Amino acid sequence: MTIAVVLLSGGLDSATILAMAHKEGYECHTLSVDYGQRHRSELAAAERVAKSMSAYEHQIIKVDLTVFGGSALTDRSIAIPIEGIKAGIPITYVPARNSIMLSLALSWAEVLGSRDIFIGVNAVDYSGYPDCRPKYIAAFEGMANLATKAAIEGNKLRIHTPLINLSKSEIIQQGKLLSVDYSLTVSCYQADEIGLACGVCDSCRLRRKGFEMANLPDPTYYR
Amino acid sequence: MTIAVVLLSGGLDSATILAMAHKEGYECHTLSVDYGQRHRSELAAAERVAKSMSAYEHQIIKVDLTVFGGSALTDRSIAIPIEGIKAGIPITYVPARNSIMLSLALSWAEVLGSRDIFIGVNAVDYSGYPDCRPKYIAAFEGMANLATKAAIEGNKLRIHTPLINLSKSEIIQQGKLLSVDYSLTVSCYQADEIGLACGVCDSCRLRRKGFEMANLPDPTYYR
Repeated sequence: MTIAVVLLSGGLDSATILAMAHKEGYECHTLSVDYGQRHRSELAAAERVAKSMSAYEHQIIKVDLTVFGGSALTDRSIAIPIEGIKAGIPITYVPARNSIMLSLALSWAEVLGSRDIFIGVNAVDYSGYPDCRPKYIAAFEGMANLATKAAIEGNKLRIHTPLINLSKSEIIQQGKLLSVDYSLTVSCYQADEIGLACGVCDSCRLRRKGFEMANLPDPTYYR
Repeated sequence: MTIAVVLLSGGLDSATILAMAHKEGYECHTLSVDYGQRHRSELAAAERVAKSMSAYEHQIIKVDLTVFGGSALTDRSIAIPIEGIKAGIPITYVPARNSIMLSLALSWAEVLGSRDIFIGVNAVDYSGYPDCRPKYIAAFEGMANLATKAAIEGNKLRIHTPLINLSKSEIIQQGKLLSVDYSLTVSCYQADEIGLACGVCDSCRLRRKGFEMANLPDPTYYR
């Protein structure tokens, strides 16, 4: 079987890409990054999701980005915005997070002999994060193919972003066709320790609207 | 003062770039990455070097790459080669290490409001690591300038690699002119806990030859 490294946050999007990678026939090695995120219950959600979809193995790697701070997700003195989605990049943006996560996935992929990394970035119903855009992903892939021993030996790497041009409701519809159990996932930026969602942060709003637009019941546990 | 993030391993090259960045007038924020490296005494060396050159602040960030392994530096069951430098990329290559380190530096730079990252990569007297080549660095810089909020707001980032085309002896000569105390640094891949060098690994050989070619006494503490 062809090996893929699947970045798994514990949220709705990454659960869907795991189902997609699995359906495409990959042996899925899932990776979560414990970066000191406020919503730590997403890490437990990622483990549940990996198990529910029979991932080959699940790894959690720690890198404490609270050392740097600069985001409401890594600095608890900065409040999560709850007034609704506004123009511009919100304070929940974590500097260079996807570069760090993709670099970690790149490292593991090379050790595993994998040429395929899956990441659930989306550039439609999203918060405007620069590192979710197609041109960023293309640039990372180009860099990655100069970075590793594997790549210069001819094993070119591909970054798979099957959700990048889908709306949240389309993502949910595709996941449902693949039997993803979204009740296992946690999207809320300030989910409590058992994963109950606030319902009012940007991530909760995007998720709720996605279920509404898809005409599907919202399985999220709200507090 | 203009802020720079300087990646500081504790070795000879990164000590030299810190001196260079300092001389260019940057306020230097030094960053070491504790990635589970076998030669952990280089982390103490980095702290000594940062202190000796009055870095503005020194941070150590942990990311445990022994979870992935795949290198003699992150898997203690793989021996460090001591027979001399051979053709090809040696087993001391750590998959995607510079991508991980530069991504971490990118994150901190954005939080600090810095547009300048210094890294001591070298593509002359080196071990053939793919992520030390000029075209890799250029690709990383291009990716970084699509990755962050700072970059899309017009604060373009530059990756400074002042050593990339210098021989080891030229690096040492330039460092000497800047009063770098190389006795504080640790290059050996299997330095012991107090930093004594083996003298026979590739890194020791490149370093020793550098001092010989520069006609300077080698201040390395060998065991």
